[in-house]
Amino acid sequence: MRATVLVRPKHGILDPQGEAVESSLRQLGFAVAEARVGRLVDVEIDGDDPATVRRQLERMCEQLLANPLIESYEIELAAG
Amino acid sequence: MRATVLVRPKHGILDPQGEAVESSLRQLGFAVAEARVGRLVDVEIDGDDPATVRRQLERMCEQLLANPLIESYEIELAAG
Repeated sequence: MRATVLVRPKHGILDPQGEAVESSLRQLGFAVAEARVGRLVDVEIDGDDPATVRRQLERMCEQLLANPLIESYEIELAAG
Repeated sequence: MRATVLVRPKHGILDPQGEAVESSLRQLGFAVAEARVGRLVDVEIDGDDPATVRRQLERMCEQLLANPLIESYEIELAAG
């Protein structure tokens, strides 16, 4: 089963990369109020049961993919 | 209007960060067939018309957010 994990800096956590992107976008003439930068991980994982796969992905996030102190994560399972 | 831009390494492009994540997940005992790492940018942008906002985001991607030679991008406009 395919899944995408989205990892974002939590609200209130400084995001220097996002600030740099925001400033560059403005310099290019775009009317941007805010930009925040996170990362995504596309995972192909053994298993067909969505609930089981989601639990595994949550454990991956807690153990490796995200830093729960400063980052939030969102799990999207591919349909089909 | 809020939007999220997802940027991923194109198929066939080496992704050392993804390989490292894949290998670490396996060492942690997860049955992962593949992992690819990309990034995401959450943008708050002036404008209410989805078509106009999408065109602006495409220009942002071409000019700054993605490297079209080696990366593909996907634009998700927030509903409402």
